[in-house]
Amino acid sequence: MQQLTPIKVPVAGGMAQEFGLVRCEGGVCAARGMRAAGVAAGLRKEPGRRDLALVAADATCACAATFTQNRFCAAPVQVSKEHVAHGRARAVVLNSGNANASTGAPGIEVARQTAALVASELGCDERDVLVGSTGVIGKPLPIDGFQHGVPMAASALASTPEAAHDAAVAVMTTDTVPKESAYTGVLPTGEGDQAGEDSQVTFAAGGFVKGSGMIQPNMATMLCVLSTDAPLTAAAAHAALTAAVDQTFNKVTVDSDTSTNDTCILLATGRAGGPEIEESSAAFPVVAAAIRCVCEDLARMIAADGEGATKLVTVDVLGARTTRDAEVVARSIANSPLVKTAIFGHDANWGRVAAAAGKCGVDFNQDNVDIDLLGVPVLRAGLPVPMDEEDMLRRFENPEVAVAISLGEGDASARVWTCDLSHEYITINGDYRT
Amino acid sequence: MQQLTPIKVPVAGGMAQEFGLVRCEGGVCAARGMRAAGVAAGLRKEPGRRDLALVAADATCACAATFTQNRFCAAPVQVSKEHVAHGRARAVVLNSGNANASTGAPGIEVARQTAALVASELGCDERDVLVGSTGVIGKPLPIDGFQHGVPMAASALASTPEAAHDAAVAVMTTDTVPKESAYTGVLPTGEGDQAGEDSQVTFAAGGFVKGSGMIQPNMATMLCVLSTDAPLTAAAAHAALTAAVDQTFNKVTVDSDTSTNDTCILLATGRAGGPEIEESSAAFPVVAAAIRCVCEDLARMIAADGEGATKLVTVDVLGARTTRDAEVVARSIANSPLVKTAIFGHDANWGRVAAAAGKCGVDFNQDNVDIDLLGVPVLRAGLPVPMDEEDMLRRFENPEVAVAISLGEGDASARVWTCDLSHEYITINGDYRT
Repeated sequence: MQQLTPIKVPVAGGMAQEFGLVRCEGGVCAARGMRAAGVAAGLRKEPGRRDLALVAADATCACAATFTQNRFCAAPVQVSKEHVAHGRARAVVLNSGNANASTGAPGIEVARQTAALVASELGCDERDVLVGSTGVIGKPLPIDGFQHGVPMAASALASTPEAAHDAAVAVMTTDTVPKESAYTGVLPTGEGDQAGEDSQVTFAAGGFVKGSGMIQPNMATMLCVLSTDAPLTAAAAHAALTAAVDQTFNKVTVDSDTSTNDTCILLATGRAGGPEIEESSAAFPVVAAAIRCVCEDLARMIAADGEGATKLVTVDVLGARTTRDAEVVARSIANSPLVKTAIFGHDANWGRVAAAAGKCGVDFNQDNVDIDLLGVPVLRAGLPVPMDEEDMLRRFENPEVAVAISLGEGDASARVWTCDLSHEYITINGDYRT
Repeated sequence: MQQLTPIKVPVAGGMAQEFGLVRCEGGVCAARGMRAAGVAAGLRKEPGRRDLALVAADATCACAATFTQNRFCAAPVQVSKEHVAHGRARAVVLNSGNANASTGAPGIEVARQTAALVASELGCDERDVLVGSTGVIGKPLPIDGFQHGVPMAASALASTPEAAHDAAVAVMTTDTVPKESAYTGVLPTGEGDQAGEDSQVTFAAGGFVKGSGMIQPNMATMLCVLSTDAPLTAAAAHAALTAAVDQTFNKVTVDSDTSTNDTCILLATGRAGGPEIEESSAAFPVVAAAIRCVCEDLARMIAADGEGATKLVTVDVLGARTTRDAEVVARSIANSPLVKTAIFGHDANWGRVAAAAGKCGVDFNQDNVDIDLLGVPVLRAGLPVPMDEEDMLRRFENPEVAVAISLGEGDASARVWTCDLSHEYITINGDYRT
């Protein structure tokens, strides 16, 4: 057997180490000044199933949000876009069971009324409440469940890990597990080493997400609520959120579909104390890293929980001429049904990886291409390396599968996450609506 | 139930009627001056299975070809590109069982030797022989089988429908059926109505293709050999071929993957007689239409024979601002695993069609969008139209499924063909190599 050095890919989780961040409990309530609740409001068919989540800061605070780019966008997305425009918010209300999409003007009205119900419970302006929905589309979403459920959720609000968990559970649809993550760290004081230990300011960032395909069967992919107690300005919150989302959620591709309802919201309560953090502040990179670590955890959970997934697949493209080239190739590989079914079948079929890389219009010379599967060199300079098939089958037992390709054109790289494509995906998506 | 007019989509096969073309027998041998053979040369594991096809004109004639755009391209593609450069050819030799891809310089040498073997049998220049391969990749393709098989194929050459059929069978891999088509028509004399009936020149165009996914499991999608006895110049053959391929094979998308081996070759024997046909000749549009009709038949057969397919799906996009917009939306719908699994599950899930249209970056207003499924209006001006679910289930019994969407932005349109995504696709592609 030839001995070759595997392609050198960056280590996962490197950012947490670099900034001294530590995973912690509490999800969206890990940040001080946050409360959450998840209740059964009867919005779903299954009686007693939690279907309404409420997440609230103790006071109106800085807020940023990103939304689906899909031309079809749901009523709650339209209302939340409007409400977040002033960069501040108090609460987010989310429901599962009905996406309130393709519901016209009445749907917009229901989203507004939902925000108003929460505002009246919390004693804030309705423009300080954002709304998110997930579930079936094209069906009217009645306000009734909210009239009953919002007061129930408001009185259940608590700052405990259990309450955060209830909220994470209430937004699940085809998700097989709730998805939460949180990190704590220390904010640099900006005064260098003179500051004693007792002046250290700790902070937390956390959140939850629902999503188990880039689009859920009935088009309501990803709803994510994040929080931090670091005193970010609205502009800094926006910068941290968009950078994190771009490098994490936007790098997950389960089936290349994106939804009408995708929403990701960040509340920054400021309860950690200390001076306001702008993008130029010394503390900004630390907080941004924590938010990105939370998002990376949640993004990997989405990929691993892809509909019918049996494997989390990480695709690394290295040696590309530009980052865009690297990303186009990475997505082409990650979205290839042939690559995904090969992984499902434990088939070390690097030929499909090569074909997926070659088809996407990015220029490279096949004679310079290296490919590793599961950490094993399988193609060097465009020619196959003999494989130990037994060893490959053993490596496929791991729940994570690494695919790496080096194009030999430059120094740019990209990473995306996906999952394999299984019989279960067909069953879930072929049978869902009926 | 609301009564709405379905979206007006163009009729399939309209071109044949417009130019008075009629389907006929004979496949690649329908054109005069063509012979074909398909023999078992022992290139495949299964003993006795036909695996070597030879298609030859009676004399060297005009030839055009199009090839895969994949950056990874197989040895026979590289050699055939070189050989077709002078616009003339005598024969095409094709094998199944091994794609001769990712095989380096030795692979190129085998492709050259194969061409030389055919040239020596037929008594022509080896540059007049094109080569095509399909099957597993990354494995050396030994020349031995060809040394034995090429003389066998050469002596089996015949101008019969059976011989054409044998050639079509010899290139099959995961294809469940051989795919052939042919049309005959009358060439306009260019002298108007003065020409009597006895001066009429009839011609034929026909061919075969292999392909049952946009990429076969081991990366050898589509091999197509077409012929016509119309006296096209090399330039006219090239123009007719590229136009036809662009409107037919390039509009089929089974799983969004494209292969390293795609090859489509047209030989024009000129045996129909009459003056040479240039692009500017009166006869050109008729011949080009015949070639396009053959390609459209073959393209639809590929989509219908998609790996694991249970339905042929035609996606029409109308009312787009530009043809490019229409095509991007059509491909986004046709490649959406969610749309394809819904069709497999007989689920009239127009929401997934809407989401696939909205995600691809083409600008439109969701309030102007209409969607028809199976000829039934299901969305008008962005709002759902109540469906008769029983009627929809009945319509899903048809082997063909029509999806049409009008964007309400302009007059441009596009059509693509695909198939549904089934359990069988996962089985075929999850288990193939091992």
